[in-house]
Amino acid sequence: MSETRDEIMSATYRALCAHGYADLTMQDIADETELSKAALHYHFDSKQELLESFLDFLYDGFTERVGGPEGETAPERLSALIEMVLSPPVEDDERVAFKTAMLELKAQAPYDEGIRERLRRFDEFLHGQMRAVIDDGIGAGTIRADVDPDDAARFLVTALDGAGTKQVAVGQDPDCARRMLTAYIDGTLTTADTRVAEVGSE
Amino acid sequence: MSETRDEIMSATYRALCAHGYADLTMQDIADETELSKAALHYHFDSKQELLESFLDFLYDGFTERVGGPEGETAPERLSALIEMVLSPPVEDDERVAFKTAMLELKAQAPYDEGIRERLRRFDEFLHGQMRAVIDDGIGAGTIRADVDPDDAARFLVTALDGAGTKQVAVGQDPDCARRMLTAYIDGTLTTADTRVAEVGSE
Repeated sequence: MSETRDEIMSATYRALCAHGYADLTMQDIADETELSKAALHYHFDSKQELLESFLDFLYDGFTERVGGPEGETAPERLSALIEMVLSPPVEDDERVAFKTAMLELKAQAPYDEGIRERLRRFDEFLHGQMRAVIDDGIGAGTIRADVDPDDAARFLVTALDGAGTKQVAVGQDPDCARRMLTAYIDGTLTTADTRVAEVGSE
Repeated sequence: MSETRDEIMSATYRALCAHGYADLTMQDIADETELSKAALHYHFDSKQELLESFLDFLYDGFTERVGGPEGETAPERLSALIEMVLSPPVEDDERVAFKTAMLELKAQAPYDEGIRERLRRFDEFLHGQMRAVIDDGIGAGTIRADVDPDDAARFLVTALDGAGTKQVAVGQDPDCARRMLTAYIDGTLTTADTRVAEVGSE
């Protein structure tokens, strides 16, 4: 089952990039595999069940990729986290297509408890990672002591989310988000004697 | 036509809140008016044309509401702008429904030039307002001289967008965005002797 599951998950990814979320059918996903639609239904009762499994699959990849960011200081580790979110390891031409499908999926969250709960897990994981790095940084004296770790982590996660939406909706360059977030980390969070990154406003 | 147009625009708003964007039909919109579907088609050839007019209608209201924010200092005017975006003058129970429909619409932007261009106008208007206030503030000495007006305005607009998406996707309280953005304005943009707002991290 594990190999088949991986095949179905990859097929779901390709089908989402090609068709978007709203019009996606089980047949579209089956067409991206060696399986018939009936065989696909043997593994997943419904499109909803399959998409929930797909979010779980993405979540596993996300936690592996985003967990334990590397860097000597907390500001460096925050930048590494941001980089991993802004530049997921997919082909350039797929990136916007996939982000678009994910945005459609977010718009379904108010109507779908299963999706909402899973999106919340992504949100909480990234927030927890950011928060832990900020906490560490305050302890190590690289992040200013008057920073509220919870609020600052929430702000970074929210701004990253906005950057993704702006990329889809108005074609905003992710480099812009990278520069803004670097300026925020360096200008607002980092203690004066730790600054490592270039400030975008210089 | 103007009165009929206003009626159709209000009907489109109600229909979007009730049905969302993806499944919306001309019939759904006609059902919210005194008009037949045929009469609606007399005014708008297609659903797409109607929705583009609806975005123009929203844009007019947006520029009127968000233009010329009040406040003695630039940081106060930035807070007023943020407040106007976070709390549009609609009923509480409609707010999330409408934001959800707008998020669906944003996810359509890559496929639809008419929608994309219109979303870009909103984006550029808000960015221009923010930027002008920051420029003024630097001149008046209330905003720090080392702030890049373009980047800071872009950051505020992007974070506000993220706040809207998080509200829809994971139910994040807009109060959280208000607190974060106030902390950013006060902690990062405002000169030390001008601080007016409370810092969220205190």
